[in-house]
Amino acid sequence: MTTIIKHNFGAGPCILPANVLDQAADAVRNFNGIGLSILEISHRTPEFEAVMKETGDLVKELLEVPEGYSILFLQGGASTQFSMLAMNFLHQDRKAAYLDCGYFSQKAIKEALLFGEVDIVASSKDKGYNYIPLGYEIPEDAAYFHYTSNNTIEGTEMFSFPPTSVPVICDMSSDIFSRRVNVADFDLIYAGAQKNMGPAGMTLVVVKDSLLEKIQRQVPSMSDYRIYRDNGSLFNTPPVFSIYVAMLNLRWLKEKGGVTQIETENIAKAILLYQEIDRNPLFYGLADPDHRSRMNVTFKMKNPSLEQEFLDFAAARGVVGVKGYRSVGGFRASLYNALPISSVEVLVNCMNDFEKENKEVELAQSESV
Amino acid sequence: MTTIIKHNFGAGPCILPANVLDQAADAVRNFNGIGLSILEISHRTPEFEAVMKETGDLVKELLEVPEGYSILFLQGGASTQFSMLAMNFLHQDRKAAYLDCGYFSQKAIKEALLFGEVDIVASSKDKGYNYIPLGYEIPEDAAYFHYTSNNTIEGTEMFSFPPTSVPVICDMSSDIFSRRVNVADFDLIYAGAQKNMGPAGMTLVVVKDSLLEKIQRQVPSMSDYRIYRDNGSLFNTPPVFSIYVAMLNLRWLKEKGGVTQIETENIAKAILLYQEIDRNPLFYGLADPDHRSRMNVTFKMKNPSLEQEFLDFAAARGVVGVKGYRSVGGFRASLYNALPISSVEVLVNCMNDFEKENKEVELAQSESV
Repeated sequence: MTTIIKHNFGAGPCILPANVLDQAADAVRNFNGIGLSILEISHRTPEFEAVMKETGDLVKELLEVPEGYSILFLQGGASTQFSMLAMNFLHQDRKAAYLDCGYFSQKAIKEALLFGEVDIVASSKDKGYNYIPLGYEIPEDAAYFHYTSNNTIEGTEMFSFPPTSVPVICDMSSDIFSRRVNVADFDLIYAGAQKNMGPAGMTLVVVKDSLLEKIQRQVPSMSDYRIYRDNGSLFNTPPVFSIYVAMLNLRWLKEKGGVTQIETENIAKAILLYQEIDRNPLFYGLADPDHRSRMNVTFKMKNPSLEQEFLDFAAARGVVGVKGYRSVGGFRASLYNALPISSVEVLVNCMNDFEKENKEVELAQSESV
Repeated sequence: MTTIIKHNFGAGPCILPANVLDQAADAVRNFNGIGLSILEISHRTPEFEAVMKETGDLVKELLEVPEGYSILFLQGGASTQFSMLAMNFLHQDRKAAYLDCGYFSQKAIKEALLFGEVDIVASSKDKGYNYIPLGYEIPEDAAYFHYTSNNTIEGTEMFSFPPTSVPVICDMSSDIFSRRVNVADFDLIYAGAQKNMGPAGMTLVVVKDSLLEKIQRQVPSMSDYRIYRDNGSLFNTPPVFSIYVAMLNLRWLKEKGGVTQIETENIAKAILLYQEIDRNPLFYGLADPDHRSRMNVTFKMKNPSLEQEFLDFAAARGVVGVKGYRSVGGFRASLYNALPISSVEVLVNCMNDFEKENKEVELAQSESV
């Protein structure tokens, strides 16, 4: 039996570089040759403290984080951040400005409403979130302005950010480390790790220290950003293995040439797939072309009854994880950092070949009539 | 160079069975032979849903969880539970009863105070938490009664539980799966995984469904136990790998004969080490003999200036993780499920041999005088 090579287009947890997985597997057996597994060492050992330090340093280097910011490692995913950030920064008598640009924006808004007022400055709900709203005002008295830079489910991404004088908080879960951003434009960036950073179980927060001075509400220790900063994210036992694999993955990114290099590759991958979607008469893209995500490409077939057939056709060639999110349907191909362009070529060839086979079937059917 | 076999007495994250580590490493390369890593599959795949189900079923089987309880998998460790349980169950106008029996009890009390009143029914702080208080009253109008079954830092453990009519909430982080407990005596049991369940990054909660009906406060989704129950702990991306390794570890425990068998072995290991501590004139135990923990054995040397020498002596024989917690000092040997009795024998032999060497040195010194 020959094993088919898998092309993993999953939306997250998602593909990681093969050599990162190899190193991670080795460390599960014997970490750094110390005779113990990475899973069974204390988070207080010098060995693990070195991992924490290197991971933080790599985040700083790869994102070019300026002075005056702290790098924190938390648990609970972006979903925990939705409430935690409001608990810390949305004071009782204030309102926060939110851009409603997708499923996860809505979730963030819902959690913020537990702590104060929310001013939705713009929404793309009218068209099923297939675009990013433009040309709105952010109230100057808002406690902060919140948005999602990439909408994993709908397949849209923000490429220009509105200038504002209020603190900017951004959920970058699905495009952090995929493209250059100017960290100085943000007061708090958060991201669940399980896209371009590492495996599930860890959340990255990059926060401007001056923002932390604005916390007024008394919050639980594990919901207080200052506790993480003051304890080097070691107030309690951190998600040791997830942090370790993130370190390996960020090392891989650095060796590859960093965010600038990966951005070039990500653009090339996205162009390749969107060109085929636009060319192939069987398919169409879901997102407004100006706001198409480079990370999550959403598309459907003009004839929906062929979708399952195409999924099977692609699966036979090793393409996995392209089924669209349940509320959207169709397909979603995620092109995260670790996905090689050769995998995108396989998918594009699938679409191309499926089109040809389909034409032959149609031709045969019309001839037999 | 010969590699010395390590005997890992670390307090957590801690030793895991070698064959669990082997299987975990294999799955990081290729999970179940599907051609993808356990780190890069979606939590919504049938493959991972099977992992969730088996892990939950193993918890139920090994702990003999009765009907009417739910098994939840969360993130954030026991430290997150300290505030979350109070947020859910300590209503504004009520008070909760807490037994103050150690470092982590104190932490739990601190977080509860953010949500309501706390009635400390008894404390062993007077003697540095070296015993478990007995003979106290639990107010019948308390929202719940909270205690820590095993005190990881101080090395004490509760072997009898006070009868009460109020809901009982217990932090079993460091002795769950190490001994039989009657789950029906508890309304909520929580435990950070990184002792006897699996690697860091996952928290187990076993909760009586009827307790969840008592939630009054509006809490964030990620702090609401009902959200985890209603979504099978898949409201957001769970800590996939930590849950998977916990499943492997619970399979190992089941194959070994379950909690009854491991309890017998844990008792034998503890007796062996405590006997040497009591016999060896160089050492003394820290906990009251009636409340000595089987999981975390705390002891010191009568001559503290010898402690570093003993640590080095033991390290040369592969003994690691026995340095006491910073606020306690001395030694702490954790005897979790995966630690074989042969490792305890190595430590006991170290103590014995160190005593002999010490006698020879004393003898030589007295002779040279």
